[in-house]
Amino acid sequence: MADHNALPLVVLAEKFASLPGIGMKSAQRLAYHVMKMDEEKVRSFADALIQAKTSVHMCSVCMNLTELKVCPICSNPSRSHDTICVVESPKDVSAFERTGEYNGVYHVLHGLLSPMDNVNPDDIHIRELLARVSPEKTKEVIMATNPTVEGDATAMYIAELLKPLGIKVTRLAFGLPVGGILEYADEVTLYTALENRNPL
Amino acid sequence: MADHNALPLVVLAEKFASLPGIGMKSAQRLAYHVMKMDEEKVRSFADALIQAKTSVHMCSVCMNLTELKVCPICSNPSRSHDTICVVESPKDVSAFERTGEYNGVYHVLHGLLSPMDNVNPDDIHIRELLARVSPEKTKEVIMATNPTVEGDATAMYIAELLKPLGIKVTRLAFGLPVGGILEYADEVTLYTALENRNPL
Repeated sequence: MADHNALPLVVLAEKFASLPGIGMKSAQRLAYHVMKMDEEKVRSFADALIQAKTSVHMCSVCMNLTELKVCPICSNPSRSHDTICVVESPKDVSAFERTGEYNGVYHVLHGLLSPMDNVNPDDIHIRELLARVSPEKTKEVIMATNPTVEGDATAMYIAELLKPLGIKVTRLAFGLPVGGILEYADEVTLYTALENRNPL
Repeated sequence: MADHNALPLVVLAEKFASLPGIGMKSAQRLAYHVMKMDEEKVRSFADALIQAKTSVHMCSVCMNLTELKVCPICSNPSRSHDTICVVESPKDVSAFERTGEYNGVYHVLHGLLSPMDNVNPDDIHIRELLARVSPEKTKEVIMATNPTVEGDATAMYIAELLKPLGIKVTRLAFGLPVGGILEYADEVTLYTALENRNPL
């Protein structure tokens, strides 16, 4: 948007464009859309931004995002606190919770090791994980990072730290997606499915 | 995002998802991104939303968006006020201004006629255009709506209203984009370019 446009619109478009995955064209479209919204809706959007930023922080136990000191999952006595599922981000916690099948707790790393991007063990919440596990109270740590180079490396790194402590560390199974069509699976997935085949 | 997530994050994601072109997955990603932004930046984003909504309104002459009563283009005495370029939206004004070649003024319709979507002449700013033109002070009205069904229909409709008043109405030229490759032009563009061919 050139500077003959109303300045507040240019400013707003720049804010939108600073978000990930939103280019300048989309940002302009969004800024114009805001102009057409009811003022009340715009104000509640602005409030939502500030609320999310100021009232949400990390759970002091599992690092998931919450409004409370300890998140509802960590403070739920009916969950198995001896099983910890280690994930990259809060989004992954949502994904597991949607399955409704997991009754353990989580640990959110908020990132994956990536020496190329200068993300080292101190930059993600590995230390907090080490502090909360012990052979007495931890039955299993499930490494549930994505099956990518960074996800695998992070899982391996953490496993190497935990195994000497006598803690059981497992990794999610990788193979064909359920309901997927063999013909459309990529080679690596297919090979992984073959390698990890189970007896019937 | 399921309800085990921090509520303010769910609320913010829903706000993002209510914007055009942003699905629930992207909205969640944006909400998480906001969490990682500096609080100061989040506050200035929230301010930008409210500023854009409250301080920007339509120019009383051309309907373009501005912070002033009359926009800088309409109040510029060095522009040709006898030539009015009629466009669909403020974005189009930006596009023309970027060319640096147009010295007339604009009229922003804020929409195109579309009976299917229940957009009728009274829903777009045609009346304001009729009120500002006259054979004495208007040399030319350039219909610069998009070359779509709605854009063409709107241009035709307005032309039929203006011509009886003795006002010259023109339409943008349509043809091959400059620098475009003939092979990649769609059939309609190519046919239009052929029909509108000029002597060399």
